[in-house]
Amino acid sequence: MTHQTVRDWDRALVPTGAGRTAAPDPACPVEAALEAVRGRWTTLVIRELLHGPRGYREFRRTLPALSDKVLTERLAQLTALGLAERVETSGFPTRVVYRLTARGEALRPLMTELYRTGTELLTTPAR
Amino acid sequence: MTHQTVRDWDRALVPTGAGRTAAPDPACPVEAALEAVRGRWTTLVIRELLHGPRGYREFRRTLPALSDKVLTERLAQLTALGLAERVETSGFPTRVVYRLTARGEALRPLMTELYRTGTELLTTPAR
Repeated sequence: MTHQTVRDWDRALVPTGAGRTAAPDPACPVEAALEAVRGRWTTLVIRELLHGPRGYREFRRTLPALSDKVLTERLAQLTALGLAERVETSGFPTRVVYRLTARGEALRPLMTELYRTGTELLTTPAR
Repeated sequence: MTHQTVRDWDRALVPTGAGRTAAPDPACPVEAALEAVRGRWTTLVIRELLHGPRGYREFRRTLPALSDKVLTERLAQLTALGLAERVETSGFPTRVVYRLTARGEALRPLMTELYRTGTELLTTPAR
């Protein structure tokens, strides 16, 4: 398997200090993290992959309203960013599954934090 | 000052368990958290407000490339979501500043986590 590398990320210099970005910048870590989870269905697909390698069959079961077309797009997006990879299982017949890369695994604590923050937002009065 | 409340949030029922959402849903905490930080410049404006109340003058100094028009839009978005509020300072002449609400303060750990995750994404090889 070959992987496209991330468009801006692999060339990005991580800033020497947080909080210094003065304008939107794909090399800013905050934007890189948001880019990874951007798009309708993306976090749901990532959630499934956090459970382990998944094929279309499993996605269809847990996310029945997700079309194959959109699933294909989302998996391509995650693969292009180096977050997931396509794997053919050994054995016969072979199956194609997707699994998170080491980079993709880096999203695990963020997913937890998004859930925790969202729960707090939904339960904190606006004023 | 009055505040619009969040469109879906205030009516949302927080799910009884994480990881059960089967389709995109604004009442999912993960989506609520992403909605709060969505949009170009949004995280930069939030970052400034995390330092304390800020008026247009301060935004102009730390984010010189941010136009007043976009800043106004971003502040309106944060206010509509109940994350920030407009305050007139006492004294003479009065000044208008924006500050985070208690709900907006809930974004602080998420911002830290986005930075941490992004740094890891930018430094972890794609494979």
